[in-house]
Amino acid sequence: MGTRERILDTSLALFNQRGTAGISSLEIATELGISPGNLYYHFRGKEEILAALMAECELALGRLIHRIRADELAAEDYDPLLHSVFRVCHHFRFLFRDQEALRFAKAPIPRRWHRLMAQLKAFAQALVAGMDALQPLGLSAARRDALAEALMLTTLGSLSFDAILDHQEDEAARIRLGIDRLAVLLAPYAHPAVAKLEG
Amino acid sequence: MGTRERILDTSLALFNQRGTAGISSLEIATELGISPGNLYYHFRGKEEILAALMAECELALGRLIHRIRADELAAEDYDPLLHSVFRVCHHFRFLFRDQEALRFAKAPIPRRWHRLMAQLKAFAQALVAGMDALQPLGLSAARRDALAEALMLTTLGSLSFDAILDHQEDEAARIRLGIDRLAVLLAPYAHPAVAKLEG
Repeated sequence: MGTRERILDTSLALFNQRGTAGISSLEIATELGISPGNLYYHFRGKEEILAALMAECELALGRLIHRIRADELAAEDYDPLLHSVFRVCHHFRFLFRDQEALRFAKAPIPRRWHRLMAQLKAFAQALVAGMDALQPLGLSAARRDALAEALMLTTLGSLSFDAILDHQEDEAARIRLGIDRLAVLLAPYAHPAVAKLEG
Repeated sequence: MGTRERILDTSLALFNQRGTAGISSLEIATELGISPGNLYYHFRGKEEILAALMAECELALGRLIHRIRADELAAEDYDPLLHSVFRVCHHFRFLFRDQEALRFAKAPIPRRWHRLMAQLKAFAQALVAGMDALQPLGLSAARRDALAEALMLTTLGSLSFDAILDHQEDEAARIRLGIDRLAVLLAPYAHPAVAKLEG
């Protein structure tokens, strides 16, 4: 693995553990055992590292949105798709816990952050639209939109909240717990895609 | 209004606007037009101000939990109750946006913050239990618990997310939007309490 990738990996781990505000680029260099100058050669400060991690997250989510929009999904496609989006969000979970730090960070962080949130909302809307196409949910457009927002907020909340209450489960168990919460929200629609959600 | 109350009010406004990490006790004193020494006479630093605001939030939520547990609620009680809890959470909204700053703040902030989250979960559980007593929801205990968590996470997400997407609505409209999202989650149960939610 190249130095650039090692810097990104270590930064991600530190941000997930301790938030972005508490971590300096000097600490990242120390953790890696490289000189601050070497780190600076790759990234001119923490903002550039943050921006690179956000770009990775955007790319991963973009692929999933493309998939949900391009194909006509069958009922059995929803469980792996929800797992994928949860895995991406869990991987970059500091982005969803540290809102104030990111909202008030230097440019271009706040703009990128808004874009990421808009992407997540687009994913939730495409998910609800796909389910509706598979079998009508019997909801008005406004209610479908409110349902998409509730699903998105529950997902984001799952990522933050589990850390807060110090749930000790491993990553897979945490993702499972998050999907269970989405399933209970969707279950009343007795939808074939929901019946295919494991757990 | 006494100086102590003015300090708390101004701090709350600044924290809601700009998060806790970006605000120093010196800035609070400057905003109030008082000397740092005068502020220090009332609160020995930002942590004490934060702790006092958290105690206020806890007290307000505690009263609402007491109400939901003590009375047997009728269907028409749920709308005002949800409004009350949203109003309290909206008033102290910085507490739900600035998770990392609060998790890694000096004692006793992180412990208090956990307590507040546990309180919100207890409220959501009591809400679901009350609705179930009024008319069975037809859910297992585990699913009722998942529903309570999803309601809580959607509420917390509403408070954070609206600020992020810069919705320009006033406080009442934001609270309405949050309650709409809860209503869409509860609507499939065709429950009398849900039918009484306005909007």
